[in-house]
Amino acid sequence: MTLPATSSSAAEHMARAIQLAKQGWYTTRTNPRVGCVLVNAGQRVGEGAHLKPGEPHAEIHALNQAGALAKGADAYVTLEPCSHQGKTPPCADALIQAGVKRVFVAQLDANPLVAGQGIKKLQAAGIKVVQGLLEDDAKNLNLGFNQRMLTGMPRVTVKLAMSIDGRTAMASGESQWITGPEARADVQKLRAASCAIITGVDSVLIDDSRLTVRTAEFTSLYGFQQPLRVITDSRLRIELNQSILQQEGQTLLATSQTAATANPQKIEALKAKGVEVLIAPLLNNFLDLTQLLKLLADKGCNQILVEAGASLAGAFIQANLVQELQLYIAPLLLGDAAKGLVSLPNLTQLAAAPHWQVNDLRAVGKDWRFLLKPLASS
Amino acid sequence: MTLPATSSSAAEHMARAIQLAKQGWYTTRTNPRVGCVLVNAGQRVGEGAHLKPGEPHAEIHALNQAGALAKGADAYVTLEPCSHQGKTPPCADALIQAGVKRVFVAQLDANPLVAGQGIKKLQAAGIKVVQGLLEDDAKNLNLGFNQRMLTGMPRVTVKLAMSIDGRTAMASGESQWITGPEARADVQKLRAASCAIITGVDSVLIDDSRLTVRTAEFTSLYGFQQPLRVITDSRLRIELNQSILQQEGQTLLATSQTAATANPQKIEALKAKGVEVLIAPLLNNFLDLTQLLKLLADKGCNQILVEAGASLAGAFIQANLVQELQLYIAPLLLGDAAKGLVSLPNLTQLAAAPHWQVNDLRAVGKDWRFLLKPLASS
Repeated sequence: MTLPATSSSAAEHMARAIQLAKQGWYTTRTNPRVGCVLVNAGQRVGEGAHLKPGEPHAEIHALNQAGALAKGADAYVTLEPCSHQGKTPPCADALIQAGVKRVFVAQLDANPLVAGQGIKKLQAAGIKVVQGLLEDDAKNLNLGFNQRMLTGMPRVTVKLAMSIDGRTAMASGESQWITGPEARADVQKLRAASCAIITGVDSVLIDDSRLTVRTAEFTSLYGFQQPLRVITDSRLRIELNQSILQQEGQTLLATSQTAATANPQKIEALKAKGVEVLIAPLLNNFLDLTQLLKLLADKGCNQILVEAGASLAGAFIQANLVQELQLYIAPLLLGDAAKGLVSLPNLTQLAAAPHWQVNDLRAVGKDWRFLLKPLASS
Repeated sequence: MTLPATSSSAAEHMARAIQLAKQGWYTTRTNPRVGCVLVNAGQRVGEGAHLKPGEPHAEIHALNQAGALAKGADAYVTLEPCSHQGKTPPCADALIQAGVKRVFVAQLDANPLVAGQGIKKLQAAGIKVVQGLLEDDAKNLNLGFNQRMLTGMPRVTVKLAMSIDGRTAMASGESQWITGPEARADVQKLRAASCAIITGVDSVLIDDSRLTVRTAEFTSLYGFQQPLRVITDSRLRIELNQSILQQEGQTLLATSQTAATANPQKIEALKAKGVEVLIAPLLNNFLDLTQLLKLLADKGCNQILVEAGASLAGAFIQANLVQELQLYIAPLLLGDAAKGLVSLPNLTQLAAAPHWQVNDLRAVGKDWRFLLKPLASS
């Protein structure tokens, strides 16, 4: 394909780089999703995407593919090339050494402390740099990573499923099949794109949930790993035979120092099963969720999914820790004796109720999915 | 079915008749909405709509407008012309006397006992009749009337408004402003198109609701009357100073024989205020809603709106008396201590939960409106 050297073709090349970056949607995990295209004399001579932590960055894949044709080429990169030695050598150096002529960068490094350094390095080597092309699209590739770099906190999505009258289960606890297979498949996608999934020990004890990705479309991807499963269990009530402890991938149990000290054998038994035990501080007798998220951010978690009952989901919301609510509504009524969606014990006035903006609303099979973003309290 | 020279123009004429019928949307009340167009040599020479009970039917308005040009014309009528003497003479006779050549009828008379009689009368007079053009659209003009004619029961729409977690009010009762002004304006439209609005005495006592149409767009319409307000109050707990008893239009209070016998003075005081008192039978200590609806059907009520709290709304739903749920969702969370949407005390198994089909879903200001139709229980 020969493309002309017009600005529209520059946007097309960057759009292709963004498309490439999405190849890593379910696998880059702690790393950002990045794509790169090399164009020489109007021809795409190299393409690359970052797929897996520890493996080459997008630029390196593209340079390898282009070989000698990288010399004099234009590079289109969705994220500013790194300038520091990480698990792999700096990409800025590799672009310089390959002799590229110009570099188009969609988004600056998300870490404000190093943003612009890669660009300066390229410019110092005489390479022309153009920044900002399709920047919003590029940022949308890495909402979690960007937020973690900016704030030190991961991005949190709370997934909830309810009847049309806001109920999650019958009073008896019966809750199977509220949403249909399409909605459940959609949740698999959400899980697969998350670094960690947080649930409360009550959900584990009641539902014996596994919180694994089971759809082959995702598990068969090169580099796929199960998201980290995180169980909040301040009083160490977990039972060792729960299914969640027998799954592929890592499980982390967050508990309090008090409970851990009181139950050293249980802690040892959990560790023997490969469970990571994290001692988290308490806040008003509950695990301090802000501190828990910080600890997960320190482990490199960008995107967190909360799949929990009314108490834990409500606690995340009331602590203003949620960036997105993904709400599935099944068109049936369960009545007001059935179990509620979220507990908001601190809410006493209507004016203080958490308000949301509907960013997306669509049918998912026979159910409906709202994507909601929190609005600042009125 | 033989259609004239160009079928598209026949459909266009009938579409115009349907448009005319909608002029009576908020005012025909106990009567059906009907439109009529007379076409002579390709020209529309007469148009009419039925607007108000006791006033001429659509055909008569159109014939009056057409005058001598009705002779030899084609008539397009959304509903089969009546063949019996009602408050006004039979329209079939009027069409015959005017000498129309053909009559296009969209929908047969909704009353199965007389359906086809008007057509037979026309045919006996040598008029060619074509039935079925835009029949579904014509039926949609009169969902309530059609149902009452077919089943003897009015069509019931339950209007509910809730937070996105299915709550209608804070535990304290605070409930103002859950939905925005656009949703409230939309409810005015729903009220204006209803023959009667049913509420429970609890809602009246708690909210002091008036249940009136206040939007000038409707109240200023020729022939507009306030919908009948119906209060279910089996124990006669209404207070005489409630706002709902001081409004323009009619109010009906449905109570039990026991309560009426025990409180003769209150009954007299209500009657003195112009309130109609209806003694309705009880079923399991509640007013028998099926019987109440039958009594309202006997008064000519086609379309009933239920604006009630969780108990009464749930009771209508559990009695399978609801044809449509109009549900407004405000994008805020109130938490599980807040008040629920519907009570379904007889529901004990998830499989028996009332399931609904989403017929329409749209934004109404900052809120969202679902129109739901009941599905047969699974």
